[in-house]
Amino acid sequence: MTRGFYIGRFQPFHNGHRNMVEQIANDVDELVLGIGSADDSHTVRNPFTAGERIMMITKSLVDTDLVTYAVPIEDLERNSVWVSHVQSMSPDFDVAYSNNPLVIQLFREANIEIRQSPMFNREVLEGTEVRQRMIHGGDWQSLVPDAVAEVVEEIGGIERIQMVSDSDSNGE
Amino acid sequence: MTRGFYIGRFQPFHNGHRNMVEQIANDVDELVLGIGSADDSHTVRNPFTAGERIMMITKSLVDTDLVTYAVPIEDLERNSVWVSHVQSMSPDFDVAYSNNPLVIQLFREANIEIRQSPMFNREVLEGTEVRQRMIHGGDWQSLVPDAVAEVVEEIGGIERIQMVSDSDSNGE
Amino acid sequence: MTRGFYIGRFQPFHNGHRNMVEQIANDVDELVLGIGSADDSHTVRNPFTAGERIMMITKSLVDTDLVTYAVPIEDLERNSVWVSHVQSMSPDFDVAYSNNPLVIQLFREANIEIRQSPMFNREVLEGTEVRQRMIHGGDWQSLVPDAVAEVVEEIGGIERIQMVSDSDSNGE
Amino acid sequence: MTRGFYIGRFQPFHNGHRNMVEQIANDVDELVLGIGSADDSHTVRNPFTAGERIMMITKSLVDTDLVTYAVPIEDLERNSVWVSHVQSMSPDFDVAYSNNPLVIQLFREANIEIRQSPMFNREVLEGTEVRQRMIHGGDWQSLVPDAVAEVVEEIGGIERIQMVSDSDSNGE
Amino acid sequence: MTRGFYIGRFQPFHNGHRNMVEQIANDVDELVLGIGSADDSHTVRNPFTAGERIMMITKSLVDTDLVTYAVPIEDLERNSVWVSHVQSMSPDFDVAYSNNPLVIQLFREANIEIRQSPMFNREVLEGTEVRQRMIHGGDWQSLVPDAVAEVVEEIGGIERIQMVSDSDSNGE
Amino acid sequence: MTRGFYIGRFQPFHNGHRNMVEQIANDVDELVLGIGSADDSHTVRNPFTAGERIMMITKSLVDTDLVTYAVPIEDLERNSVWVSHVQSMSPDFDVAYSNNPLVIQLFREANIEIRQSPMFNREVLEGTEVRQRMIHGGDWQSLVPDAVAEVVEEIGGIERIQMVSDSDSNGE
Repeated sequence: MTRGFYIGRFQPFHNGHRNMVEQIANDVDELVLGIGSADDSHTVRNPFTAGERIMMITKSLVDTDLVTYAVPIEDLERNSVWVSHVQSMSPDFDVAYSNNPLVIQLFREANIEIRQSPMFNREVLEGTEVRQRMIHGGDWQSLVPDAVAEVVEEIGGIERIQMVSDSDSNGE
Repeated sequence: MTRGFYIGRFQPFHNGHRNMVEQIANDVDELVLGIGSADDSHTVRNPFTAGERIMMITKSLVDTDLVTYAVPIEDLERNSVWVSHVQSMSPDFDVAYSNNPLVIQLFREANIEIRQSPMFNREVLEGTEVRQRMIHGGDWQSLVPDAVAEVVEEIGGIERIQMVSDSDSNGE
Repeated sequence: MTRGFYIGRFQPFHNGHRNMVEQIANDVDELVLGIGSADDSHTVRNPFTAGERIMMITKSLVDTDLVTYAVPIEDLERNSVWVSHVQSMSPDFDVAYSNNPLVIQLFREANIEIRQSPMFNREVLEGTEVRQRMIHGGDWQSLVPDAVAEVVEEIGGIERIQMVSDSDSNGE
Repeated sequence: MTRGFYIGRFQPFHNGHRNMVEQIANDVDELVLGIGSADDSHTVRNPFTAGERIMMITKSLVDTDLVTYAVPIEDLERNSVWVSHVQSMSPDFDVAYSNNPLVIQLFREANIEIRQSPMFNREVLEGTEVRQRMIHGGDWQSLVPDAVAEVVEEIGGIERIQMVSDSDSNGE
Repeated sequence: MTRGFYIGRFQPFHNGHRNMVEQIANDVDELVLGIGSADDSHTVRNPFTAGERIMMITKSLVDTDLVTYAVPIEDLERNSVWVSHVQSMSPDFDVAYSNNPLVIQLFREANIEIRQSPMFNREVLEGTEVRQRMIHGGDWQSLVPDAVAEVVEEIGGIERIQMVSDSDSNGE
Repeated sequence: MTRGFYIGRFQPFHNGHRNMVEQIANDVDELVLGIGSADDSHTVRNPFTAGERIMMITKSLVDTDLVTYAVPIEDLERNSVWVSHVQSMSPDFDVAYSNNPLVIQLFREANIEIRQSPMFNREVLEGTEVRQRMIHGGDWQSLVPDAVAEVVEEIGGIERIQMVSDSDSNGE
């Protein structure tokens, strides 16, 4: 049995993420999706709460054969203990997936196998693109699984990201 | 569709917890198991990491019809924001389950429906009993699902809890 | 113009506190009441939130000639920076009032004048006594200003402290 | 009796803030002024400590008929629990005042009434303008109540903000 | 070249600690003394600041041939990341020394060599004994290196520990 | 006996820092080097851990006559308590050295003697220059003591800083 770990912020979970999961499914029997910056929400970069992102991921992957776990990972703001923190919050895993250079470096220094994919970069761009379309009224729905569009609408997510994009301070 | 929220520390997940889940399954379609004190581990009271507890819960409930989510909830050490914190980390829920008076009080002050059960008290006693048997070499296996016994053995959990029960300070 | 600083947890603000304020009023023109452990609430030792304690203090002192400020002081859990923390949160003060040996020691090491009073010890006992009477149904009302009794009743404070006294863990 | 809550950083409290308070005074009997980012100081954006800001607010409003409370609100860096945090630190309030889109969104999601005013935007601009004039030697005094100018001078505030504007790192 | 790591709270550094260092000196070329609970001070259990403990250690070991480093280690309150935290704060080391069961367990789970010694237990007892004698006016000086006695006297350490032993709360 | 305190981030310790230490050596008998942002690492601005920086400093100053202490100072993110925090972590000192305006301001407000030097500014520039050369493959070795170049190579520091310079988010 092989278990993988795939870290992302999933703000929101979009088609690029889903494609990555499908590709990783060829390698592993089970997959942990680590939801990074779990304690952040209501900002342009992190509009959705960890709980909302668990819903998006779970509903989008309901028909996948892969056994998946969606696990919130709060920020500790200390790169030097980040890998240990992830390991304590996640079911044990054999291999990590990321294209983020910092994440790759931290896993390598901890001697954990890390795999990259050309698809990851595209995925990063898509995250920003989805949020920009949400803010400016573009067609974001076509970039995400149907289940994600439903969650976003149910929670009033478009109003929320549009509001916070007008703001960058708490008070004053 | 009704979703419930059941908070516990699950140190470890034992038969009392499993019975509670079966009982709650009569009320709801989906159930979030909130893993309290998720950031604590390697103590007598909280021997297992959040990731290990996710494994115990998921493997123990694999044959349940209920859709379940196991979600780590880190301590913020502020009772006044605890309900908001739980709500941000968990998929949205309609009703909470607990017999813990503090938890009941906090949910009530937030106007969230909370249900109690006579079974809960027994469950609390069982958690302490399981850990005491682990420390002193008693029969803890009969108090937990088989899947939990396997996880505990795989991670060397008995040695760990016995070691930390000899210790109550870091250094000196 | 002389300004004093009087630190307490004020759980709740009781007659002993009010008497202390009246005594201090002979020494100073203005008084800051620093509300310690401001981030703690919903426990037996700290049942009331900082906001609730501000209400109790302000309403109890409304007829005092003294200019008073009620300022919440969150715990930093670091004694070595506690005085600086207090100084940053409070209007500037000339003299501090406490009978707590740790508080006295910390102010002395920072070369800030600190005054003690025999009344303080009685005050500490009264805080515990008030909370015990609240829990066990005794006459707590006679130990606090009328305004405090009103606040406690308005917020359902008796039910709260009785509930949390039955509990000593979050979940399980 | 109606109590309002008005959140700002008040760095420093200026004429725009005072005008807002006067306008809000038409709506409410009591007003809590929540001092945001209370734990921040000695930066260009937040030059003054919470204690210094309490002084500015209290002295500026001494002749107002309105009952006011100045309450420091420390940052928790978690938008999802921010409203609960504010509620625990503040006397209970019926309506909040802000023009900040994030604050509005957070109160709305918590079902708390929030009122906006065209004056708020002007107020934000004034805060930055006052600080820029302080740094570059312009006429900041005419933008703030006399009591604020006195506090700033008493604490050596101009030297402080000029020093920190030359700096953006601690050490090195 | 072999470097060891020896963790303790060193409250204060006493003869038992010095003997341990002398024994470890037979094994290693350099030794890091990790000062645990570095952020705690002014309590009965942790009376001295990290800076004061650095002084005690450095002055006591000035005549040792061993190259030593005294490194404060702040508590993160998360056992699962403790080893990574220690590794990030300390010069790289080959072997750790402790008799504390929790510390041994944490290093073992991280696959770091850990050595124990019968002397350690005696050392723990001595720490408590030294502090009790300080509080109750006994002969603590004979249990610590001369350099430590000098530091304690210079900083008024006896008065401090006697004061805090009378106190167990901040305020009230 | 005079002891000085010299605060920096030392990312890495370079020739400008070493020259400063040599100059300060004319004033003092002992020198504490406070390693700022000790909890930060694996970023472009703070590539090295506190432990790695202790190694760099200690090895670079091994032939200095001055008694030196390298002490990690974790960020508390509160300027108002920063001086107290430094004082608790460091052996007692008589004079501080810095050219950073914020640091100067904070020490001045705490009535601690602070000395500046024209050399400091050059030093700041050099820190950025060294890191840029590391990232872009320039000659960084000539800007640092030989001992620092050895530490950087031993820990794979060039690969690390090049990796993190490609990254500015954790995950996604």
